[in-house]
Order: sequence, then C-alpha cells, then structure tokens
Amino acid sequence: MKKIWYTVDAFKNRQKMKNYFKKIDLETKKQFELLDITEKVKMAVLESGIRQGIVVIAVPHTTASVRVSHNEPLLLQDIMKSIYRLVPIDISYSHDLFEVRQNVAPNERSNGHAHVKAFLLGSSESLIVEGGSLLLGAKQSIFFVELDGGRSRQCNIKVLGE
Amino acid sequence: MKKIWYTVDAFKNRQKMKNYFKKIDLETKKQFELLDITEKVKMAVLESGIRQGIVVIAVPHTTASVRVSHNEPLLLQDIMKSIYRLVPIDISYSHDLFEVRQNVAPNERSNGHAHVKAFLLGSSESLIVEGGSLLLGAKQSIFFVELDGGRSRQCNIKVLGE
Amino acid sequence: MKKIWYTVDAFKNRQKMKNYFKKIDLETKKQFELLDITEKVKMAVLESGIRQGIVVIAVPHTTASVRVSHNEPLLLQDIMKSIYRLVPIDISYSHDLFEVRQNVAPNERSNGHAHVKAFLLGSSESLIVEGGSLLLGAKQSIFFVELDGGRSRQCNIKVLGE
Repeated sequence: MKKIWYTVDAFKNRQKMKNYFKKIDLETKKQFELLDITEKVKMAVLESGIRQGIVVIAVPHTTASVRVSHNEPLLLQDIMKSIYRLVPIDISYSHDLFEVRQNVAPNERSNGHAHVKAFLLGSSESLIVEGGSLLLGAKQSIFFVELDGGRSRQCNIKVLGE
Repeated sequence: MKKIWYTVDAFKNRQKMKNYFKKIDLETKKQFELLDITEKVKMAVLESGIRQGIVVIAVPHTTASVRVSHNEPLLLQDIMKSIYRLVPIDISYSHDLFEVRQNVAPNERSNGHAHVKAFLLGSSESLIVEGGSLLLGAKQSIFFVELDGGRSRQCNIKVLGE
Repeated sequence: MKKIWYTVDAFKNRQKMKNYFKKIDLETKKQFELLDITEKVKMAVLESGIRQGIVVIAVPHTTASVRVSHNEPLLLQDIMKSIYRLVPIDISYSHDLFEVRQNVAPNERSNGHAHVKAFLLGSSESLIVEGGSLLLGAKQSIFFVELDGGRSRQCNIKVLGE
C-alpha cells in the first residue's frame, strides 16, 4: 500500500473536544430554598473555553435538585407552596420511622418528604452552549433546589464540546 | 529523543467530534398543548451527520417543557387533566398579584400555574443517537409542552457526537 | 505556501472523543418497581474506557422512567406511595377506554396512570464522569423506574467523552 504523507494542514481544522469540570460549593440556610446559580454556571462555561457544546448540571445529593425557572420572588413562593402541597411535610413517611429502619445514622434527619420531592424533580438538567455562551431564554435562571436544608452542598457542572 | 514520522493512516481512525445546533420555531394555539416535534428532532439528527452521540433538547422558556410520551390523543387528554389536577389553574398564585409584584410588564399574563408546571416537568431531555438514528422506543414521541399558550415559541436542539 | 511536516508528537496530546453505547436488559416483576441499576451503569462507564465526560441514561419506554435516589427500602415505599397518591390508579383515564380509542392492540393494558407518571418523571437523566469514575453522591443510586410491570424492559446508556 502506498503511504501518503500529510502535513498538519490536513488536521488543523479537525475539531478538538474539550472537557471541563467544576464543582461548586453552596451553603443553604432554609429547609426549602431556591438558590440562583446562573452566574456560577455561566462562569464555568467561560472558564471552559468551550464555544459550542453542552452543559450538564448534576446534584450529588438525594434531597436536592436542579431546575431552570423565572427568578421572580413571588413565583418562587408559589413553586415552594405547590411542592409542599403535592408532597406534604406533615404526613407520615416510613423513611422517618427510625425505630424500624436499618442503618440509621445518629444524626439522621426526618426528611422522607425531601427525598420524595427530589425524586419528582430529578437530579440533572442539560443546557446548550452556542457561540461561546450558555443558551438561556430571557427569563430563565438556573436554580439549585434545596429540599432539606440548611446544609453545605455541592453542585457538579460539566461542559463538553469544543 | 528519536522522532517517529507517521502517515495519515495513524490518524484517520481517530474520531472527530461534530457539533450541530438547530433552533426550531413553533406556534402554539391553546393554553395547554402537546406538540409532537419528533420529526423535527429526527431531521436535526439527520442534518447533523452525526451517527453516534447524544441529542439535548432544551426549551428557552419558563412556562414550557419538553417530554417524551406516547402520541395517543386520549392519553394526551389524561396527561393534561392530571397536570391540571396537580397544579390547578383556579387557585391563587402570588406571581399573579400584579399589585404587589415588582417589574410587571404591561402585557403580563396570569401564568403562575404555568411556571409551577414547567418547574415540575423540567426544561430539558437528553436522547441517544446510535447507528445514525435517534434512539426512540416504538411508542415514544417527543413533545414540546406548551403550558401558557398560544404563543410563538422556540425549541433548541443540540446534537453532539461523531 | 510552505508546508510544515509534523511528527505525531504534535497530535498525541490532542483529545480524542470516545463514544460508548450499551443497552441493558431488565426484567421487572411488579407493577411499580424501583430497580437499582447503579452497578450496571458503573460497568458501562468502565467498559467505555472514558475517564472524563458524561453519561446519558434514557429509557425507550413510555411507562417507565429513570431516577437517582437513596436506596433505602422504606423510602422506596414512600416514593411509590406518594406517586400513587399524585396519580391514582383508581380513577378513570380516557386512554383506558378501549371502546372509543383508536388502534388498540389486542393485549392492551389499562395503563393510563403509568403513562401519566412517566410523563411527570421524564425519560432521561444525565450524569458526569470524572477521573475515570461515575460521579455519584455517597447516598445516590440510579433506578430504572418501572411503572407498568412486570415486563421485559431495556435501558439505554451512552457514555461520551475521552
């Protein structure tokens, strides 16, 4: 087989994948809290140098979530009120029956309700990066959703693209 | 160090990342509407030329969502009825108290309920591309979920892979 | 134009995208069941050889979902009880009116409730791979959520990265 020798010109337009990871630390103060992390996610995209690709935001907790919504204070109250109505805090959750549950930690919280809420909401959202920017609608903000605070929390951000 | 010269054969099996973005425009007619966008997403995958990778579908709105479900007309009624029951339209949302809310636009809608619904459903879904096709189950269709229509809407599609 | 000849050294630090796909088969036994698939997803990440990137887990069914939660048996009961309360099985769903519905298969199930549940929960979750491992919090397990079992099911896993 005849071998053809190429110069770098043959490769320089080849797209190069970039992979950027950032863990952000958060402090929540209330049981149910919506923390706007939009600027932190935008910063991660900027730091990544990625101009087109995706962002995956994933929470490493089972009583927290991530969601995109409109940052209007009265609406955030509506959201929390609605979620409390769907998954009440004042009914019985078997998860909180520490007498019958196995492997209960000494400082265990009565947070059955928070796990159910997190299950409903999910643990990740994916967004798009285009033209060097995070693609968000005019009214969209990204929220870390604390369902069993106050706590020290993390949120993992991965930017993948080129 | 002895330098070894390689031919292009050494690189031609190297996978090349492709990045494809498409914004689709939608017109909704009703307050709550499920628009089947499966064909539009499949077209985007085809146009991308990507044979294996992922698709992220993200809505840039705070009163809309994206979901995968079975396109059966009676079922779509069930889904809408259930979501109306979970987040009723005829109860009070603080977001709609325009007298106390800050920065209310002149043409503001009473759409507290729609924001809450969008929060529950989420703003993105991720799908898989394999063998040049969007991987969907036999009964799966992709829906743009309008929760506060009728409106002119967008839906962002990113295909990432090779 | 003067052509410059490069050695492989010029390319060997260039990141190479890897694309790994795995379909896992599952057998569910009960109508509503939470199957822990954490080990299967971790295995897929290991097999992919990908050390940094993302994992998309997508179900190709319209009466199943995927979620990340704490694998504590009493909690799993709470989750199922809460979801049954939000989307009851003992109310009427138009999808189950086989007399009026079009194109009903002979072995059709009365599963309107399960479709609504799947719509609420969504069909995908995205996770992050970093340092060769799936990034999961200490209490996080990945669940295939069966909403209309027992059945033979699939779950699609895509690992994308380098």
